[in-house]
Amino acid sequence: MDHRDYFSDLARQPGNTALAELFKLTERPDIISFAGGFPGPDMFLPEEAAEVTRQLLVEEPYTVLGYSPTPGFSALREFLAERQSRLGMPAAAGEILVTSGSLQGLDILGRVFLNRGDRIIVEAPTYLGALSTFASYDVRIDSVPVDTEGLDTARLAALLEQLRRQDALPKLLYTVPTFQNPSGQTMSHRRRQKLLDLAGRYGFLIIEDNAYGELRFAGEEVPTLKALDTDERVIYLGTFSKILSPGIRIGWIHTAGEIIERAVLVRQAMDQCSNSLGQLLALEFGRRGLIEKQISKTVHLLGERARLTLDLLAREFPTGTTWTEPEGGFYTWVSLPPAVDTGRLLSHCIEKARVAYVAGAAFYAGKGGNNQMRLCYSQPSLDDIARGIPRLARALTTLF
Amino acid sequence: MDHRDYFSDLARQPGNTALAELFKLTERPDIISFAGGFPGPDMFLPEEAAEVTRQLLVEEPYTVLGYSPTPGFSALREFLAERQSRLGMPAAAGEILVTSGSLQGLDILGRVFLNRGDRIIVEAPTYLGALSTFASYDVRIDSVPVDTEGLDTARLAALLEQLRRQDALPKLLYTVPTFQNPSGQTMSHRRRQKLLDLAGRYGFLIIEDNAYGELRFAGEEVPTLKALDTDERVIYLGTFSKILSPGIRIGWIHTAGEIIERAVLVRQAMDQCSNSLGQLLALEFGRRGLIEKQISKTVHLLGERARLTLDLLAREFPTGTTWTEPEGGFYTWVSLPPAVDTGRLLSHCIEKARVAYVAGAAFYAGKGGNNQMRLCYSQPSLDDIARGIPRLARALTTLF
Repeated sequence: MDHRDYFSDLARQPGNTALAELFKLTERPDIISFAGGFPGPDMFLPEEAAEVTRQLLVEEPYTVLGYSPTPGFSALREFLAERQSRLGMPAAAGEILVTSGSLQGLDILGRVFLNRGDRIIVEAPTYLGALSTFASYDVRIDSVPVDTEGLDTARLAALLEQLRRQDALPKLLYTVPTFQNPSGQTMSHRRRQKLLDLAGRYGFLIIEDNAYGELRFAGEEVPTLKALDTDERVIYLGTFSKILSPGIRIGWIHTAGEIIERAVLVRQAMDQCSNSLGQLLALEFGRRGLIEKQISKTVHLLGERARLTLDLLAREFPTGTTWTEPEGGFYTWVSLPPAVDTGRLLSHCIEKARVAYVAGAAFYAGKGGNNQMRLCYSQPSLDDIARGIPRLARALTTLF
Repeated sequence: MDHRDYFSDLARQPGNTALAELFKLTERPDIISFAGGFPGPDMFLPEEAAEVTRQLLVEEPYTVLGYSPTPGFSALREFLAERQSRLGMPAAAGEILVTSGSLQGLDILGRVFLNRGDRIIVEAPTYLGALSTFASYDVRIDSVPVDTEGLDTARLAALLEQLRRQDALPKLLYTVPTFQNPSGQTMSHRRRQKLLDLAGRYGFLIIEDNAYGELRFAGEEVPTLKALDTDERVIYLGTFSKILSPGIRIGWIHTAGEIIERAVLVRQAMDQCSNSLGQLLALEFGRRGLIEKQISKTVHLLGERARLTLDLLAREFPTGTTWTEPEGGFYTWVSLPPAVDTGRLLSHCIEKARVAYVAGAAFYAGKGGNNQMRLCYSQPSLDDIARGIPRLARALTTLF
């Protein structure tokens, strides 16, 4: 029988296969991949993880093997509240929901806030996983460009004014303000303040996805939106994926208690609770100072890889190409001449040059990005970068 | 500010707090709980889990700490396909999607199949988590009663005929055919065949949730619906929660490849992938025969606990009470005289008798269950059962 007759409207959409393709590449060792936004294998602390896990299973086997409460283990929520507070974002345990990764956090917020047809605003470009999640909610999406100072708040102000005239103001704005995925750009302090002012004036909430914020290898610290927020407009998404392990699938939402309460209810209809061992491993890593240890190891490696990548881009990439200069995080964002189609070039680069990237179009809610690509320098070694960027440059040059 | 103005229609619904309340009780050691559907602490194999986990983190640290592919690790999908085949349900790896628990499997199927306003059919009573999930999709739900032979297929046939006349046939039917949650009842072979015939005739798909099917302590094996299905109408939900550990949050969907492909896409917008360590632990437990070892340990303990529970119900519970006699699984379902309101009695039973159950109404899509309760005998020890059931009986008797 043909099951497609039964599919929902959502399942009938073509669907964004970019992420699936990325994850498949992880199983091909012959490819030098600048595609997946994964920590490098040398960023982990495997021995410490083995020791902590062993101890947990010996000392608290039933806690590790049993269910956790839906909002997460109380001890982890308390730890996260203290950690958020230490990072300048005062929190109580009741303002924290443990999630199965920060993307699930976004999906939970979708259920809590979004009706079909609601309006939201995202950055252009933005995290493609978030675009997939918002697509599930069948909302109308407007985009505001990102430049070297992050989200362009002047353009945002103009858009909001126009939407107000149409009586079509957004409910939410989603941003990755620091070391943005995919652009690597960071929103300036001045623009953060401006964004918060606009949120108050036009009455929308801000979802701040801060997956990379603690991974700064250059430049000056900028406070998070949540730290600057005096009006509870910012809903903060955190994750252990880039500072401990993506495989544990543990993130968190930090927001007002009344939002957390509803989030817990909708989450019971999703995956009920996060895995116990991942939660307890994160808690123990936190208590023992191992998260900070892993962050400083990661920051050191990211700095080296970013510098080499940017040097090689300057030396090898064809004229007419530009790229961003990140001060932290995983990504640089490359713009090729307008006639180049990075989506069409990708299979050529993979098969001939054995180098992978993510084509730019997947990161836009609307049109755009056809001549752009995301390069992730976190996973390849310095050797791989030294071989991979020139190979990619040659493959592109032959096609210009 | 008041965030409730921003809530979605879903988040404005009162919401089913029964599950949240259950999970809270797990943190109160003074209560003898027949509430949560959790494996008993003595059903796990903690030493084996510690050893397997240690080995995984030593031998494959980057696999354990890194992301898994969205559909699950290939090796686990292959293992599950073989295991399903061994259990009479031939499968290929491409017909398996690893999920973060079977409830997430149901949520994924909701996205793949359900549009707002679609019709589905559930059992009355049915698993309350499933009711919460379906509520997220804003579908119209009809219910068909369960009796000692499981879902009443004669009633189902009559309902379908009526729905056909209204041009309102369902897209899906959700069932827990074996050792049902909450009733403990098992659908007879005859009715399974009848249900499959009706699915073919009226053109709906069947979601078979088989969380408890391998936990039989009495009576004769009955084939799963999936094993009897010759027309790819059955979508099978499996889970390791009751046969290995609920804390690892690993389940699976077994269905046609074209459904799995769409499920992978929608799942990328949800939690991206399941946790790696849980997947690898399940795989190693499987390869070493430890799942079968844990099943036989669990079945033995469940049999003892069920027999004692049923004996004590017969001896202690007031006249006018009836209950089901399960041949496996975790639950017996108690019906008190119609005037008794188990929802209103619950806090009294918890505070005075220090015994918890789940009130029946939460398990119905429509009205019903006010005088019923679910007793889960899997978690309390024999001692707890011996003390708890009489305490519950006394608390109820004083209120009759």
